[in-house]
Amino acid sequence: MKELKVGLLGLGQIGSGVYQILRSKSSLIRLRSGVSLKLVKIAEKNSARVRQVKPKGVQVVSDAMDVIRDPNINVVIELIGGIHPAKEFILAALRAGKDVVTANKALLAEEGREIFAEANRLKRNVYFEASVGGGIPVIKAIREALIANRITSVQSIINGTTNYILTKMSEEHLEFDRALKLAQQKGYAEANPTLDIEGIDAAHKISILASLVFGGWTPFKRVHVSGMSKIRSEDIAFAKEFGYVIKLLAVAKSEHGKVELRVEPTLLPKGHILSNVHGSFNAVLMKGDEVGDLLLYGRGAGSFPTGSAVVSDLVDLAKLRANGNHQVVFPSLKLLNVRPVSTVLSRYYLRVLVVDRPGVLSKIAAILGRCKVSISDVIQRERRVGSVVPVILLTHGTLGESIRRAVQMINQLLVTKGKVQVIRIEGES
Amino acid sequence: MKELKVGLLGLGQIGSGVYQILRSKSSLIRLRSGVSLKLVKIAEKNSARVRQVKPKGVQVVSDAMDVIRDPNINVVIELIGGIHPAKEFILAALRAGKDVVTANKALLAEEGREIFAEANRLKRNVYFEASVGGGIPVIKAIREALIANRITSVQSIINGTTNYILTKMSEEHLEFDRALKLAQQKGYAEANPTLDIEGIDAAHKISILASLVFGGWTPFKRVHVSGMSKIRSEDIAFAKEFGYVIKLLAVAKSEHGKVELRVEPTLLPKGHILSNVHGSFNAVLMKGDEVGDLLLYGRGAGSFPTGSAVVSDLVDLAKLRANGNHQVVFPSLKLLNVRPVSTVLSRYYLRVLVVDRPGVLSKIAAILGRCKVSISDVIQRERRVGSVVPVILLTHGTLGESIRRAVQMINQLLVTKGKVQVIRIEGES
Repeated sequence: MKELKVGLLGLGQIGSGVYQILRSKSSLIRLRSGVSLKLVKIAEKNSARVRQVKPKGVQVVSDAMDVIRDPNINVVIELIGGIHPAKEFILAALRAGKDVVTANKALLAEEGREIFAEANRLKRNVYFEASVGGGIPVIKAIREALIANRITSVQSIINGTTNYILTKMSEEHLEFDRALKLAQQKGYAEANPTLDIEGIDAAHKISILASLVFGGWTPFKRVHVSGMSKIRSEDIAFAKEFGYVIKLLAVAKSEHGKVELRVEPTLLPKGHILSNVHGSFNAVLMKGDEVGDLLLYGRGAGSFPTGSAVVSDLVDLAKLRANGNHQVVFPSLKLLNVRPVSTVLSRYYLRVLVVDRPGVLSKIAAILGRCKVSISDVIQRERRVGSVVPVILLTHGTLGESIRRAVQMINQLLVTKGKVQVIRIEGES
Repeated sequence: MKELKVGLLGLGQIGSGVYQILRSKSSLIRLRSGVSLKLVKIAEKNSARVRQVKPKGVQVVSDAMDVIRDPNINVVIELIGGIHPAKEFILAALRAGKDVVTANKALLAEEGREIFAEANRLKRNVYFEASVGGGIPVIKAIREALIANRITSVQSIINGTTNYILTKMSEEHLEFDRALKLAQQKGYAEANPTLDIEGIDAAHKISILASLVFGGWTPFKRVHVSGMSKIRSEDIAFAKEFGYVIKLLAVAKSEHGKVELRVEPTLLPKGHILSNVHGSFNAVLMKGDEVGDLLLYGRGAGSFPTGSAVVSDLVDLAKLRANGNHQVVFPSLKLLNVRPVSTVLSRYYLRVLVVDRPGVLSKIAAILGRCKVSISDVIQRERRVGSVVPVILLTHGTLGESIRRAVQMINQLLVTKGKVQVIRIEGES
């Protein structure tokens, strides 16, 4: 019998899910895997949380170090979130000879290089299935199922809040602010939704996935991030007319040793498998050189889906420890060579508000031509001379740098009102 | 360093993929996992296959027992397919102290109970990721990622051939025969496509999945199987009018200790995630009590996707063996209690060909009423008195037994031509 003695830091949303799963499923897990998981100590400062969960058969303390220093504990689960003091707690746990399980994507994306270097030095393990995609076993799929594959591309919807908002905007023709309020009422968005809306949360997650699949460490600051608050319901409607859906897509691709990394609202063809990921669901589509396309789809957040991932890490660690073992996650921690998005070739959607006068479209077309941007489709509606109307242009494949220059020039035209809306198009073969 | 010495039985489609992956990816795998995979011997009787692959740095023999008895080999990969002599080879390998990796779904579904009982007795391992869903890590997801979950439902598209045919019939308005020919030309269907078309292959696979998720062994003969050759392109068109797609769905559900198991053409709402699985792709949608819905999607066949799954099993076995270990896959091999489909409540699609006379619809409606089948939707077109026209009826939730009785009576009406087409509707909440 492999027994694992577990300490838990943080009894918030995920922590309480982990507590309840361990309580109700320990004997099922023992039957299935031969592993006995025993939660022996919880650290939580907030006594209101402790009163709400009322943990039974487990000691509750307020000081995390009381768990970390306990010689009786093998594995520490870090679920307090944030960078500090989560980082210090994880490092202290590793130095105390413990393995660590964490769901902390911000910490891993921003400080993971130091944490994994220390884990490698100490021959201890940091497992983090719950940090990306909640209950979706994407880390396990990459590390184990796809071990024989070079993964060249990851395209993902890994923030449930923004996917819920975009779904509502699309299905119910709502503007962003209204859809955000709905998401907050449903508990999908936090009171301060910045990390989700501005794409930072998705950037943390794609950064972790890129480090896993490309055999090096992702410098988080090099992820190109653009939030979704700029998307208007008319963009969604125009995209639909052309046969596209708008998603906040997190992408990591590798070509010739250079990595492309970006999180931004993106047009996807409506038949694309990721276009059919609705509401708060998450999905990760990977391309492996042996396996081809592989998609994993499920709940990217919530106490129980995320708790389910934490518990599967515990079982894996118990098996690993029975072997006295350390499993290297990142064989190399050298920084990946990230390519500026300006050098990426993509098609684009442009929405330009113009004063409708004869010759306006030809002025815009001339600028695009000069910048070597070629147009594939145009919509111009409600033509009334003198009124302000939207012109929608789809381009052929274009360098990011060319689009940037063209848009800058179009923004300066006297007939242009406001700034050009620019959205990348992805997912066509 | 964990080293695994591997023997391979069969150098057909999957076998040659495994050979090539081991050849090209061994050093990548060693870097990532610390596991060294060494292919030492291949058994293949067909010398044309050997000449085609030209294996290098590995001994090729014609007798499988020559591999199985080799004391230098730790793991035998069985890729010859079929029941006999594959079963005898696997049992011999286990008795010779070897672990086994197989992609043989027919064998596992029909004879797996005996094989796993012997593996448990000998404390040896049989791994079979490649047997269901090709390169999709569905076995690993169930056994490891979802270890804390009770899975209550599996809905899947696990036969690429039939999904390709149904996709072609739907997209290009082809009849079955024509679409089958296309699939054969593309290499997606075999010259004798019976196992695929009649749902046997999918039944083998869902049978394996049911045994894994429901904690017992599935009596394969109890899987309710209905093939797809009865589907006509007009059924696909009518289904579309009502907002449905037709898929060959393999389903396993458990309720109150009874298991529902079926493979048959099924109507799914077009917004359902499985309705968007096109061409030869496979997908498995599972519902776990902690994780909620989880979908895995990818290539269900082919040398390299399937080879990728075989190789991931090898790495897992190498780690397990380093620990001198046996991992129980099926803690119980007692037979599952399978519920007759006649007791399952479902909605149904009925297509009845009738001679269009006044009162025909009311006769059909009267029979349905007497059998307690309630109608939700009707289409009757091209009304010309005396001509033969299709009447399409969708029912509310009905017991399989009630539908069977009603259809039997409708088939006997004088105004009915041919037999009623009956297709289950699934996937509505």
